[in-house]
Amino acid sequence: METDRRGLLGGAVAGAALLAPGAATAQGGDMDKIRRAVSAGHDEAIARLRQWIALPSIAAENRDMDKGAAMMAQMARDAGFQQATIVPTDGAPGVFATMDNGAAKTLGLYFMYDVKQFDPAEWTSPPLEGRIVDKPGLGKVLVGRGAVNQKGPESAMLAALHAFKRAGVKPPVNLVLVAEGEEEIGSPHFKQIVERPEVLAALKKCSGVIIPAMWQDPTTGDFTINLGAKGIVELELIASADNWDRGPTRDIHSSQKAIIDAPAWRLVKALDTLVSEDGNTPTIDGWFDKVRPLTAREKALIAESARVRDSADALRQAGVKKWIGEESWQATLERLAAMPTVNIEGLVAGYTGPGGKTILPAKATAKLDFRLVPNQTYADCVAKVRAHLDKRGFQEIAVKVGGGYDPTETAEDSALIRAERATCERAGVKTTVYPRLAGSWPGYIFTGAPVSLPAGQFGLGHGNGAHAPDEYLLIESTNPKVMGYDAATAVFADFLYQVAAIA
Amino acid sequence: METDRRGLLGGAVAGAALLAPGAATAQGGDMDKIRRAVSAGHDEAIARLRQWIALPSIAAENRDMDKGAAMMAQMARDAGFQQATIVPTDGAPGVFATMDNGAAKTLGLYFMYDVKQFDPAEWTSPPLEGRIVDKPGLGKVLVGRGAVNQKGPESAMLAALHAFKRAGVKPPVNLVLVAEGEEEIGSPHFKQIVERPEVLAALKKCSGVIIPAMWQDPTTGDFTINLGAKGIVELELIASADNWDRGPTRDIHSSQKAIIDAPAWRLVKALDTLVSEDGNTPTIDGWFDKVRPLTAREKALIAESARVRDSADALRQAGVKKWIGEESWQATLERLAAMPTVNIEGLVAGYTGPGGKTILPAKATAKLDFRLVPNQTYADCVAKVRAHLDKRGFQEIAVKVGGGYDPTETAEDSALIRAERATCERAGVKTTVYPRLAGSWPGYIFTGAPVSLPAGQFGLGHGNGAHAPDEYLLIESTNPKVMGYDAATAVFADFLYQVAAIA
Repeated sequence: METDRRGLLGGAVAGAALLAPGAATAQGGDMDKIRRAVSAGHDEAIARLRQWIALPSIAAENRDMDKGAAMMAQMARDAGFQQATIVPTDGAPGVFATMDNGAAKTLGLYFMYDVKQFDPAEWTSPPLEGRIVDKPGLGKVLVGRGAVNQKGPESAMLAALHAFKRAGVKPPVNLVLVAEGEEEIGSPHFKQIVERPEVLAALKKCSGVIIPAMWQDPTTGDFTINLGAKGIVELELIASADNWDRGPTRDIHSSQKAIIDAPAWRLVKALDTLVSEDGNTPTIDGWFDKVRPLTAREKALIAESARVRDSADALRQAGVKKWIGEESWQATLERLAAMPTVNIEGLVAGYTGPGGKTILPAKATAKLDFRLVPNQTYADCVAKVRAHLDKRGFQEIAVKVGGGYDPTETAEDSALIRAERATCERAGVKTTVYPRLAGSWPGYIFTGAPVSLPAGQFGLGHGNGAHAPDEYLLIESTNPKVMGYDAATAVFADFLYQVAAIA
Repeated sequence: METDRRGLLGGAVAGAALLAPGAATAQGGDMDKIRRAVSAGHDEAIARLRQWIALPSIAAENRDMDKGAAMMAQMARDAGFQQATIVPTDGAPGVFATMDNGAAKTLGLYFMYDVKQFDPAEWTSPPLEGRIVDKPGLGKVLVGRGAVNQKGPESAMLAALHAFKRAGVKPPVNLVLVAEGEEEIGSPHFKQIVERPEVLAALKKCSGVIIPAMWQDPTTGDFTINLGAKGIVELELIASADNWDRGPTRDIHSSQKAIIDAPAWRLVKALDTLVSEDGNTPTIDGWFDKVRPLTAREKALIAESARVRDSADALRQAGVKKWIGEESWQATLERLAAMPTVNIEGLVAGYTGPGGKTILPAKATAKLDFRLVPNQTYADCVAKVRAHLDKRGFQEIAVKVGGGYDPTETAEDSALIRAERATCERAGVKTTVYPRLAGSWPGYIFTGAPVSLPAGQFGLGHGNGAHAPDEYLLIESTNPKVMGYDAATAVFADFLYQVAAIA
């Protein structure tokens, strides 16, 4: 998932004033039965997760997409979904599954069955094994690609459904599952899945949609509820002779720079126009036209986050000495939520090895990502980049658009958010509400038309290392404030009760 | 050698007016004997070259430097040098050899025994084998790392000396050989060799110094005599948190760009200040302060080059559609000789693989080379880059200086240049005189104090692919205008007679 798991904002706000009244409990001790069933099913659940991790579906490599979708569908059926259908797209197939429990309320689940690429040489445990190892300060963790992003948390939600079955308890809500295999490449075909008439009709009955996550702060155990996320555009700017009547068509000797134009310099000059002198404010024509400023309520939420959260601790976690402009902590957190960004992910041109090589490169590429805030849109921002370059005479610089999507927003008083907060409160976990995740996820597909539902990440427990080597999920916690796998599984079960209770 | 072998300037000027009167011939049919000896020694000479290619000394990898120096010294002894000494330096060892033939004149030879790095996977013939293959339009060529840069031409000079021995003819000049193993990394310790008292004393007796080359135009057979070469500075600009109280200390999630400064943007902003908007004119403070404009004679030489040389052909060879600014051909050739350049050899930051990766890179590097014209100097230019960045607040950008050296110049009427022209005329090869090679070589060590000699590249024959895969040397030519290996070897012998004859 396109989010920062380092938990910049793991602080706590006691938000009781916003809690729904009368948050529900399971009837007749059902949660006790379910907790026992979770424990009884522990080994099976871990085995299921390990089996899933052993089949890495990677859209960027077109690796095992059909097998991954088939396994996803089978896992849904095994967990009690009465139907689970493979949904073809123009890319990797998705899965649509439903579980009718005869309940009044329905919850949507968004799963991704794909994972990020990995290089086994960089791992201390085999990335497809799911080995359980001790991690000092945390406890026993399962190491594997997808452990936290996102198979581990998703497997815990499935384990909760297995626990309902094992306990002989009917889940208190109906469920609609939509899964895709292209999240890690920007969900280019996910709309084709959710806009199928039968899928859209099923989603329309939902109170909201979550993707299971395990996002407790590993120290305090606190949980941050984000009322949305920034959108994202990923693209490459490519300078070469392909669209230009100048510059070399192959890398040539650098002595010819005296008489031959250089794509790399064109790229530098074009990049220079995209941001302010300090590199921190976008200067693309019209970039802020659609930006909605923070509301008073959003500012108040941020002020509260700033109060309970320590700047020095956040600096240490990020590995930096100073925030931009040495602004106050509150102003920094406002920037985090509200500032659209233009970021250089990577630069590559010519000779990139050790030392130098006297060539004039034929091609220079900048890999950029742009984080979007409401009400910027993916399509509008891509068009603005192109227009900005064209206006300045950079017609020859190709804009190769990658994945991306619009920002997403969910109302603070929506049933979904209230159910999340009630679940945390019942679990004794402090919550902070923050206006907007600075990272991105394709929640706009749910929050935007035509689905138009509340949507977000939810789940307790902990994991880290998404996209990195030694990605892990906490299984047995040594910190009483942070949940292990079974406790987090039981919280997913309890969450279903809270969704059922809160209108 | 740090030069462009593609022969942008292979045109011909009939420069008879400048030829020395009475250019000498070998006495008593000696050249005929030597030519027969060259033919008789052909197989031995090729075997010697292949053996040399099989031992690649690569300073950047500290690969076989001692062995390379030892082989260099042994090859000198085998060719008739009475003494050949390994000369230690703070880097790779050099070789100093002398051959006293009791002659009035002495010629200096500069050899490099090192070669550029190579990746065998990119080659169609093994780079260390020296395989002979057919090359359509050229003839039989020997393929191997160092074939043209510079072992092949150097081996031909040695083969010429072997031919003198085989023919029983004493070479008409004394010889002083200085060889280094660090040419490809910018000759950082070569001064330590030439400034040793015994080496300096020997060089002081020379009429001039050449490095053997094979630079006939592969179509016309014409030869360009360069009266010097641009100097060069290679350096890296590195933006990171190492010298900065901002920015991340490791690659972090790009969502944090909203609140954390980006080294990659600092690099872009710094680079932007180094050149004009079109990327083609240096804008570094004071960069042109020491630049000496072209003289009237230099302009006349360039005008003559422009007359005999075809712009369209040069564009095609360079693989470009237009020269900078669509200037006239003559203006373009003036730029080539006279414009100092700032070139991006490479850019590298963050994620450089396919597609994108949402990180904020902790480090961004630009590999630059700067070509210098008289009277710029390496040391002054390095200092100017640093001062330019500091003045603009880029103190945190590190300047990691690589190799480089001053420009070099040799007088058109020097004995060395006159001997080169006389040799070409006797061989029926048209020459163009051009003020300055746009590439670079460490000739300043010879042309500057304390050695202060004429110096340049010289040799007929042809090869190409320096620094590239499938580097080759022409052995048997199918084009009567272009010499094969034996003919080029004989020309080196004749050149010694011209040096002996021209004062």
